[in-house]
Amino acid sequence: MNETERQSLAARSRGPVHVIGAGLLGASVGLGLRERGVEVTLEDQSPTTVALAADYGAGRVRTAEDPQPALVVVATPPDVIADAVERALAAYPESVVTDVASVKLAPYAELLRRGVDLTRYVGSHPMAGRERGGAIMARADLFVGRPWVICRDGDTPAEALALVEAVALDLGGVLTEMTPEEHDRAVGLVSHLPQVVSSLLAARLVPAPEQSLGLAGAGLRDTTRIASSDPALWMQILGANRVPVVEFLDAFASDVTDFADALRDPEQQGARRRIADLLAAGNGGVSRIPGKHGSSERFASIQVLVDDTPGQLARLLTELGELGINMEDLRLEHSPGAQIGFAEIAVLPEVAERAVADLVERGWRTL
Amino acid sequence: MNETERQSLAARSRGPVHVIGAGLLGASVGLGLRERGVEVTLEDQSPTTVALAADYGAGRVRTAEDPQPALVVVATPPDVIADAVERALAAYPESVVTDVASVKLAPYAELLRRGVDLTRYVGSHPMAGRERGGAIMARADLFVGRPWVICRDGDTPAEALALVEAVALDLGGVLTEMTPEEHDRAVGLVSHLPQVVSSLLAARLVPAPEQSLGLAGAGLRDTTRIASSDPALWMQILGANRVPVVEFLDAFASDVTDFADALRDPEQQGARRRIADLLAAGNGGVSRIPGKHGSSERFASIQVLVDDTPGQLARLLTELGELGINMEDLRLEHSPGAQIGFAEIAVLPEVAERAVADLVERGWRTL
Repeated sequence: MNETERQSLAARSRGPVHVIGAGLLGASVGLGLRERGVEVTLEDQSPTTVALAADYGAGRVRTAEDPQPALVVVATPPDVIADAVERALAAYPESVVTDVASVKLAPYAELLRRGVDLTRYVGSHPMAGRERGGAIMARADLFVGRPWVICRDGDTPAEALALVEAVALDLGGVLTEMTPEEHDRAVGLVSHLPQVVSSLLAARLVPAPEQSLGLAGAGLRDTTRIASSDPALWMQILGANRVPVVEFLDAFASDVTDFADALRDPEQQGARRRIADLLAAGNGGVSRIPGKHGSSERFASIQVLVDDTPGQLARLLTELGELGINMEDLRLEHSPGAQIGFAEIAVLPEVAERAVADLVERGWRTL
Repeated sequence: MNETERQSLAARSRGPVHVIGAGLLGASVGLGLRERGVEVTLEDQSPTTVALAADYGAGRVRTAEDPQPALVVVATPPDVIADAVERALAAYPESVVTDVASVKLAPYAELLRRGVDLTRYVGSHPMAGRERGGAIMARADLFVGRPWVICRDGDTPAEALALVEAVALDLGGVLTEMTPEEHDRAVGLVSHLPQVVSSLLAARLVPAPEQSLGLAGAGLRDTTRIASSDPALWMQILGANRVPVVEFLDAFASDVTDFADALRDPEQQGARRRIADLLAAGNGGVSRIPGKHGSSERFASIQVLVDDTPGQLARLLTELGELGINMEDLRLEHSPGAQIGFAEIAVLPEVAERAVADLVERGWRTL
C-alpha cells in the first residue's frame, strides 16, 4: 500500500464529511473527497446550488436521517463564516468543524466573543481559487499542490487536528501551520495587498486615451491581470481582513508618496538616493518570492521567436524535450499587431548556454 | 518582389546608417539592418563596447574616411540623448538624425532651448527592451512586431520622416505617430507607472517573514515580475519623464489613500461604495488593454493539469494542434512544493467547450 492509498483508506474509515456551502470551494472539497471514496453530504442556502453540486458528483444532499458526520467543512462566503461555524457546532455536537475561508482572525474572534466553545473547531485555508466562482467551476483537484493553512488553537485536541489535516492531505494540499494572526497578515501581504494595488493601477487606465493603451506591453498586462477579479468577493475578503490590509496599504501609500515627492524634486537632499533605494528594494523583494517547487532559486531565461502558426510552440517544446532540456517555467509574450510571439523559457543557469546553441542549430531564432 | 524585399532594397539604396551607442538597442538596430543588407557603422564612448558590437555583426567601427551616413541613430543612455543628438547634427551636416530613447519631450525641449536646428531630427521610440541590457543581449529581431513611435515635428521634411520610417519598418516595427508630449504621457502611464508600482509593491516584501512568502501565488508573482528591472536605468528614465510620472503617481497614491481610508472606517458615509467603485474600475481598466494582435477581444480560458515530467506540456500542445484548437495565449502556474502545474490556455470563446471535452476524452484533467 502506498502513501496515497493509506491516506485514502484513513479518510474513508473516519466516516462521512458534511460540506456547508456548495460553491467553488465546497463543491471542490466534495468532488475531491468523493474521488477518494469518502462519503460526502452537502447543504447550501440555495436549493439550486446544492442540487447542481450534487449533480456534479460533489456528494448527496444531507437528509434528517443521516448520521452525525465525522467532519463538517464550512465553505460559505467570508462574511457569514462565524454564523455558519456556530450553527454547525450546535447542529453536529459530535463532529469536528473546519472552515476554508480566506480570512481567519475575524470569524475566530467573533466566535470567541460569542462565547462559543471552539474545542471541536479548527480553522483552515486552502490557498486555491479561480477567477470565477460557483459549483460549476469546481474541480476535484483544485487543492492539489497548493498550501493549505491550518490555524489550530492551543486547546485543539490532537484527533480533531489530525482529522482536518488528513482531509487536507487527501485533497492534495501542502500543510502549513499558522496562528490566525500570522495567516491574516501573510495573506494580507501576499494576496490582498497585490489585489488592491493591481485594481487601483488598472483603474488608472480608465480615463486614458486609446493611443496610450496601444503602447501597453507585457509589464502592464502582468501587473494588472488580477484586477479582473470579482469585486463583490473582494469586498468581503478585504472587509474581513481590513486591519492588516489597511496597515500594508498605508505603508505602501507612504512609499508611493515618498517616491513621487523625491521624483518631483530630485535636487532636494537625498532624493536620488531614496529613489534608488526603493527601486533596489523592489529587486530584493522579488528575489524573496519562492519560485517553482517552493524554492527561491533563480533560473536563466532564454527567449525564442515563435511564429503564430499552429503547432509551432508544441514543436519547440518537443525539441526542448529531445534536447534533454528541462523547462522550469514558460511565458508567452505577444507582439501587438504582429503575427509573431516570443516564448520566454526558464531553465537551470548551467544549461542555458547549451540550450540556446542547440536551438539555434535547429533553426530557432533566440533573442 | 514582395513587400519585405522592396523595403529592404529601399533601405539599402538609401546609404549607410551610423549608430551612436552600441548597447542593447544600438547593437540590435545594427544587427537588424545588417541582416537586411544595409551598411552600418558604429561608435560608442567605450572602445570595448563598440568592438564587442562589431564582433557581434552589428556593423563596423566608423573611421574618418567613411562618407556621411544617410541616417544617424542615437542610442545612448537616456540622460545624454540631447548632447548626443546635438553633436550628431553638427558632425554629420547632411544626415537625418533619429534617437531611440524611451523619453521624448525632455531631450527635445533641451535641444530647442539650446537653439539647435532640428530640421533634420526625428525623435523615435521602439517599444522594445529586455530585462538585461548591453550589446551582448542584442538581437536582430528585437523590434519585430513592437510599436515604434515616431515623434515628428511640424517642420520635419517628408524625406527625413520617410527615411526614419523605412528603417523602423525594416527592423520589423509597427509605426505609431505621436507628439513628444503624447508619447511621454502614454509611456508614463503604461510603462513607467506600472514599473514604480511593481517595485514599491515588491519592496514591501523585504521585511516580511519567510512563512508569509510561502503563501505567495501567481497573483503576487505577476504583479512583481518587472520589479526585477535595473534600478540605474530606471532612475534615468523616470528622471527624464518625471512630470507625467509624478502626476500619475500622485493620482495613484490618492486612490490608494482613499481606498485605505474607506477600508479603515467602512461605516463612514459612502465608504463601501468607494471601495466597490475602485475595484470595478480595475475590471474596466484591464478590459481596455489590447490583447494579442492589437485587439481588445477577450478569450475564454481553459486550465489543464500538467505533471512536471519532461514532454508533458509539449504533448498537450501537440494534441491541441491535432484537435485543431488554436491557442491564443498560454500561462503556466506552479504549485509550490508540488511536482505538478496548471497550463492556462486562452482560446476563442466559441471553441472553449469543445476543447475541454476533447482534452478530457484524451485523458487530460481540466480545471
